[in-house]
Amino acid sequence: MSQQRLIRLSTQHPTSAVYVLGTEISIDIYGSAPKDAMWFDARGSPGIDVYIVHTPQPMQMPTSEPRWPLGAEAEVVVTMGRPSDDVGDHKVRILYYGKDVQTPLQKTMLYLTCVEVSLEADTTRSGTVQKKATDKRNWTWGPGGQGAILLVNCDRDEPTSETMDNEDNSVQTCKDLRDMSLMVLRTRGPAAVFANHKLVLHVSGSDADKVGVFYAHSNELVEQHTHVLGPEKLFYVVEHACGEEEHTFYVEGLAFPDADFSGLVSFHTTMLDTSHKSLPETPIFTDTVVFRVAPWIMTPNTLQPLEIYVCSASDNTDFVEAISNLAQKTRCRLTICPELENKGDRWIQDEMEFGYVQAPHKTFPVVFDSPRNRELKDFPIQSILGPDFGYVTREPLNRGISSLDSFGNLEVSPPVKVKGKEYPLGRILIGSSFPRVGGRRMTKVVRDFLYAQRVQAPVELFTDWLSVGHVDEFLSFVPAHDRQGFRLLLASPSACYKLLKEKQEEGHGKAQMFEGQEKVPKKTIEEILADETLRKENDYFQSCIDWNRDILKQELGLSPKDIIDIPQLFNMKDKQAEAYFPDMVNMIVLGKDLGIPKPFGPIINGQCCLEKKVRSLLEPLGLTCTFINDYFTYHKLLGEVHCGTNVLRKPFSFKWWHVIP
Amino acid sequence: MSQQRLIRLSTQHPTSAVYVLGTEISIDIYGSAPKDAMWFDARGSPGIDVYIVHTPQPMQMPTSEPRWPLGAEAEVVVTMGRPSDDVGDHKVRILYYGKDVQTPLQKTMLYLTCVEVSLEADTTRSGTVQKKATDKRNWTWGPGGQGAILLVNCDRDEPTSETMDNEDNSVQTCKDLRDMSLMVLRTRGPAAVFANHKLVLHVSGSDADKVGVFYAHSNELVEQHTHVLGPEKLFYVVEHACGEEEHTFYVEGLAFPDADFSGLVSFHTTMLDTSHKSLPETPIFTDTVVFRVAPWIMTPNTLQPLEIYVCSASDNTDFVEAISNLAQKTRCRLTICPELENKGDRWIQDEMEFGYVQAPHKTFPVVFDSPRNRELKDFPIQSILGPDFGYVTREPLNRGISSLDSFGNLEVSPPVKVKGKEYPLGRILIGSSFPRVGGRRMTKVVRDFLYAQRVQAPVELFTDWLSVGHVDEFLSFVPAHDRQGFRLLLASPSACYKLLKEKQEEGHGKAQMFEGQEKVPKKTIEEILADETLRKENDYFQSCIDWNRDILKQELGLSPKDIIDIPQLFNMKDKQAEAYFPDMVNMIVLGKDLGIPKPFGPIINGQCCLEKKVRSLLEPLGLTCTFINDYFTYHKLLGEVHCGTNVLRKPFSFKWWHVIP
Repeated sequence: MSQQRLIRLSTQHPTSAVYVLGTEISIDIYGSAPKDAMWFDARGSPGIDVYIVHTPQPMQMPTSEPRWPLGAEAEVVVTMGRPSDDVGDHKVRILYYGKDVQTPLQKTMLYLTCVEVSLEADTTRSGTVQKKATDKRNWTWGPGGQGAILLVNCDRDEPTSETMDNEDNSVQTCKDLRDMSLMVLRTRGPAAVFANHKLVLHVSGSDADKVGVFYAHSNELVEQHTHVLGPEKLFYVVEHACGEEEHTFYVEGLAFPDADFSGLVSFHTTMLDTSHKSLPETPIFTDTVVFRVAPWIMTPNTLQPLEIYVCSASDNTDFVEAISNLAQKTRCRLTICPELENKGDRWIQDEMEFGYVQAPHKTFPVVFDSPRNRELKDFPIQSILGPDFGYVTREPLNRGISSLDSFGNLEVSPPVKVKGKEYPLGRILIGSSFPRVGGRRMTKVVRDFLYAQRVQAPVELFTDWLSVGHVDEFLSFVPAHDRQGFRLLLASPSACYKLLKEKQEEGHGKAQMFEGQEKVPKKTIEEILADETLRKENDYFQSCIDWNRDILKQELGLSPKDIIDIPQLFNMKDKQAEAYFPDMVNMIVLGKDLGIPKPFGPIINGQCCLEKKVRSLLEPLGLTCTFINDYFTYHKLLGEVHCGTNVLRKPFSFKWWHVIP
Repeated sequence: MSQQRLIRLSTQHPTSAVYVLGTEISIDIYGSAPKDAMWFDARGSPGIDVYIVHTPQPMQMPTSEPRWPLGAEAEVVVTMGRPSDDVGDHKVRILYYGKDVQTPLQKTMLYLTCVEVSLEADTTRSGTVQKKATDKRNWTWGPGGQGAILLVNCDRDEPTSETMDNEDNSVQTCKDLRDMSLMVLRTRGPAAVFANHKLVLHVSGSDADKVGVFYAHSNELVEQHTHVLGPEKLFYVVEHACGEEEHTFYVEGLAFPDADFSGLVSFHTTMLDTSHKSLPETPIFTDTVVFRVAPWIMTPNTLQPLEIYVCSASDNTDFVEAISNLAQKTRCRLTICPELENKGDRWIQDEMEFGYVQAPHKTFPVVFDSPRNRELKDFPIQSILGPDFGYVTREPLNRGISSLDSFGNLEVSPPVKVKGKEYPLGRILIGSSFPRVGGRRMTKVVRDFLYAQRVQAPVELFTDWLSVGHVDEFLSFVPAHDRQGFRLLLASPSACYKLLKEKQEEGHGKAQMFEGQEKVPKKTIEEILADETLRKENDYFQSCIDWNRDILKQELGLSPKDIIDIPQLFNMKDKQAEAYFPDMVNMIVLGKDLGIPKPFGPIINGQCCLEKKVRSLLEPLGLTCTFINDYFTYHKLLGEVHCGTNVLRKPFSFKWWHVIP
């Protein structure tokens, strides 16, 4: 529906009005009708379309000489097709008749000047600003959706800068500008009209602290672009010299969607009549365009790896070399965080999560810095944040954080379809204490942030049964060519018992766990199987994993065929679970190459029976298993390969705005 | 989809498990299969339904002696229909076969005990708790919607109490209890099972501060009901003595929906296995029921008036008498707020807005106390809050408030239909400075509250052109039998000029405004029409009203026939508008009776021409106009009849949960 504006006519003198292209003018024919008028006629000069609207059916005015009954409460609606050349160069004449339908009782004139005033953005998500878009006030999801998109300009394009690009009120470089979305104010019409009118670009107080808008003065350097809207800057008077102009603005986001911010921000241009100097300015037209701030999106294991991160420590040379070999094999870049920087904190998975933001014109990765804040605390902001690499964090104000706030407890599934509902970017998985009560839970500010991104609707799992309490301790996803394109791997005590029992029945009961590992107490298969306490504990751990398995089946729409049980045993320590031998699901997934914690299981016929079993489960999917010794350097410190690495991955080819959340 | 739980079978000994009515058990037939098994068969004892599921098509097990291929990754799903009489009184037998399909390789037994554990509420919105409801975790809008409803228990049923009923952790009276929603935890099954299991009622930390839950001990007085869940009380262990029990809980709301609260609150009952004392409790089943906190709903002029409020002052005896007469005529109760209480503040419209909350089992009015806080500040909490009369307020933390925060600036339209979208409870109308920038705007906490109620989606109008800045200064709604059931009345300077010009042309140019009013400067019709400054100012005021008219047409789906222009002039004072003569749209609407500010217009043929005009516009709709003299007591203090009164109205017969927001 077009914006409609009522124009009242004077009975005394001709009326002048400005018509804005794309709107409708409704002429108040009753206000100026002489007392005895019974009929009227309305005609426009060439270039004006005059409609006499009889509710409910609109009728185009016939060409003969009609007389319309004034009592029928007809509406006269006027539209025009192109901007005026001169002020008042179009007119509508209203003739009123009494009983004598030949001689008019009165003639009333309306002089119109047509102007174009349009606030434009990339509302079709094509990468360029859309001219003459309609319905710019609505933002819709899905493949047929429309509405402009904004990026949180949270990278740091100027390496010497101390802050993120959106923390200052200036444009640093052209590179900085490319992270922003274009917004154009287009005006056309006689210059004299604009001399009597003011154009204001404005934003509401509640939206203003989410955005920064820069005005690009023509022929000036980007450094001289003026910051015109933002926190505490609610409006900007657009200076204009002539009728036909394009004012260019660049818009950056300051804040991601969150519990108290839907992500939608509206900008308005209002045209104010300033012709009566003694009167306040009168608004005559407002154009509005809405942007959505792009969400932060996580990347599942099934996406192509680009770069691997690992920490170097005094004791982990072999581990770093193993990861380095994998990086070489999978053609990933490798970043080794030196000990000077990690200060002995090797849990680089826990400190941060990689994701990205995307607009039709630009995509860049964004690191989400966990509130964990151990020795690696400054690594994301000091070493990851940079040109076209953004940064975001959430820290609770008051309450303490728990181990569940580490980002080993934040994973994302590959794309899934659940009972007809599609999650083409997968679903976020976080660990919690639910359904048991009173336990640890990820801090609210992080959960709120994750839920507010909307496009990867989170699922809360039960991880408080684990000592460390991270989802990556019992699950992982690996790519597959069939089914939904992946398998869910779950740590499985019962699969481990089944395997060990088979081996015992085959006569290998005396084979030992941790054979050849120095200073590690050995245990034979027989001893393990005979340990009733261990079995009961593992039955309990299995029931906790099964609880999650049931949730995952339901929330990710999985069938048993989508799930692979990876043999694993846990120990009970202070009523919580710790991996008994290196936790194999805690692996690094690099395309078809898997870096799996070496379990040091019983050697049977010269081969670790656990490794053999895992190979037999994963190799048929076309995956390659590399077992990495992390026993003393990670496993004994309650983490494994996944905890000790991090992977930057290629964004989805699927655009987030095509999701229907 | 039913909750499904995986049960793993032991190869060594029979397995026992608890089955919860309404769920499914999925039996892991692979974990317990002997090495050479190729086929299996699964059968249940009477009362157990065993399904062998072949994805994608489920097949009921045939009655002859089947053998299912073990390699086909079939799923065995078990359901039961009624609670067990004894522990383990039902069983499933799994037989595994090798090449010889006659002699089983192994027989594995699963003993099942069926129990009922169900958390129930009035999910069908019938007024009573629904047994065996499905999908209790989802809350849906609309006539076909489902999901339970909760009231904010914000009244004060005990007159001697100092606080609202939800500000303490006790149940005062049966009346207090009736404001709460019933929630029942139903259990059935062998008592011995419950001896080995614990039932916990729990709520998440983010929901807990929105609710209070009381446990009704049987045979005890309501005063002894225990407060079991609420802020900082996240779980409650339900004590149970035998198998078949109904535990009754009462739930009250503590907070209305707001910017950071969707209104949805979930309660969970988890059944924990406590049979292994050395192990942590293992969750085996969770039932969840979601409630929505009922929104605060405003009542438009078209609803039946029940009670009128007015302030008594030293100078307004006649006004109070006029309102009292109207109350008598319309059979409304009348509450006169005495001067001792109002301390000279007569603007009772501005201090509060009446609305109501509704659940299927209970409805009561709730006063929304404005953050205006002048002398009437304590009236809502001290004199309105009471038995079955709730109270809510919102005050900004930091920023100051403006005149736009008075609730003369908060109105609601009658039900409307806009481009196919229905608003069966109308739309809230508030005044703002948009589209002009930098002006006054209603404080964010109040706007956030109004938007968060969702069922009467607010529309922001432009009122900052008025000195006082309230929507009730230029609009009102009156009932009508035709069209959408109402007319929108708009103050109209141009209608006033048209009327005065007609009167001049009829020879009454010398008739005076304010004729007979002592100490009021008179002005003839001729003088008014000749005053060019006044005309220009009123053209500007008209353009401001027209701006709102265009928004109202669009946002309420109105046609010109739905709108009546009420003649009115305004004066310019410090670049803002004040009514030149008593502002007639600022009326009290009581069914078909209107109490309209007496305009004191020019007397023509013994009758005020303004009153006559207004009667001619409104009486054809079946409305009765009573003109009330508020000139010195309200008008000169920048308010009128509407500002000086307040009306409690009957709730809509339409239920808010049938809205699709």
